[in-house]
Amino acid sequence: MPRYRVTLAYDGTDFQGWQLQSPQQGTRTVQGELEAALGRLVGGRRVVVAGAGRTDAGVHAEGQVASFDLPQELPTERLVRALNGLLPGDVRALEAGAVPPDFHARRDAWGKLYRYQLDTGPVQLPTRRRTAGHVRSALDLSLVEAASRLLLGRRDFAALASSGGSAVTTVRTVRRLEVRRDESGLVFEVEADGFLRKMVRSMVGGLVAVGRGAVGLEGLRSALEAGDRRAWPAPAEARGLFLVRVDYPPEALG
Amino acid sequence: MPRYRVTLAYDGTDFQGWQLQSPQQGTRTVQGELEAALGRLVGGRRVVVAGAGRTDAGVHAEGQVASFDLPQELPTERLVRALNGLLPGDVRALEAGAVPPDFHARRDAWGKLYRYQLDTGPVQLPTRRRTAGHVRSALDLSLVEAASRLLLGRRDFAALASSGGSAVTTVRTVRRLEVRRDESGLVFEVEADGFLRKMVRSMVGGLVAVGRGAVGLEGLRSALEAGDRRAWPAPAEARGLFLVRVDYPPEALG
Repeated sequence: MPRYRVTLAYDGTDFQGWQLQSPQQGTRTVQGELEAALGRLVGGRRVVVAGAGRTDAGVHAEGQVASFDLPQELPTERLVRALNGLLPGDVRALEAGAVPPDFHARRDAWGKLYRYQLDTGPVQLPTRRRTAGHVRSALDLSLVEAASRLLLGRRDFAALASSGGSAVTTVRTVRRLEVRRDESGLVFEVEADGFLRKMVRSMVGGLVAVGRGAVGLEGLRSALEAGDRRAWPAPAEARGLFLVRVDYPPEALG
Repeated sequence: MPRYRVTLAYDGTDFQGWQLQSPQQGTRTVQGELEAALGRLVGGRRVVVAGAGRTDAGVHAEGQVASFDLPQELPTERLVRALNGLLPGDVRALEAGAVPPDFHARRDAWGKLYRYQLDTGPVQLPTRRRTAGHVRSALDLSLVEAASRLLLGRRDFAALASSGGSAVTTVRTVRRLEVRRDESGLVFEVEADGFLRKMVRSMVGGLVAVGRGAVGLEGLRSALEAGDRRAWPAPAEARGLFLVRVDYPPEALG
């Protein structure tokens, strides 16, 4: 059966995350919506999809990637159009491609880029409340930047691993971690070869704690080095997080 | 009774606009929510508010201004905090001030600034669908800019006046009209001494029609000069429009 990948964008607000749960009433997942749309597209057969990133409830995507098999070949422009006719408005297919039969959206990913939008100031604009986290305090950007350098490179991120995660190792390589101001607060961009569950939100939580003076640089460093989850600040809210891009080596895409 | 002004931000998606309607079940307006919150604040008395701009259903605000009387003086920081405790999450009070007893948020306004966010391209990101309009076609920015110059200055905007408006004259002065690209499309900013009903959305609708080649510059100019509403392109969608700021002469604010 021919295999395809599709790039998806979604508003995570009204989803219980990416991953299909054990069947429960009223549990909406992006994977569930995509599988339902693909099932209708192929006349009722079950289509199982693999997602590159298992985004949590409330987390958004501008470039999630999913792979799946179809019973027969389909021009990719038609696949995108058909999916957008079948998917709910808070999930869109952006583009699609044919891939080799052994391609897997998660296992073949070489890296991912996440963005976190954090509004700062006494009151958050209501139009931003679905797509940005919020802290009332002003943050010291130079402290945030200094703390961000602690998280760069190949490290054991056990201190940032959520207890619900299933990872065999907690070592990851953070290739880029940048913070910039925008008109409503701060924007974080993080690229790594892979992410532990809630890792970006834990990173942002740690950087914010340093930026508002609640935790010192040395305190953050020692929590990281000790791999101590209880000493690491709480993760930032889900609503500010976006899965922006998933990168694959050219040979995986065929 | 002391008079106050308050600056408001709201997500217009779930409102039937600013203005209080004749009482109907299920009609949510920003004015109605603000009056209800102020009424609770003063122990159940009726507080009538005047808004600077009567934004339509779906239109957002980052700097709407409302004026009203309170039965007694209240420190303005307390007023803001109390309102945010009483208002629903899609309306926030940003700041407040005491004003002279004859101040009126709409009549005293010297000008307003609106922003319109327009996404362009085949598929709109779902996280943008509440706060940006969308056209599939790419737009020729130089044509959009050329058309925008037709709308600058003191002119009769009868061609852009919606039939539901109540204005005595359709002459307005557009002080600034700028268009720029951003990562998802175009952003329009318009400042004028006042706006007819749906005027910004009609402006954007006209500029988009020129930018995608559906209407020529000369066609737009002659519709404007003839004051011909039927010859003017359809208004852009409400969801991309933001009331950003209302300006007052210093003497009006006291």
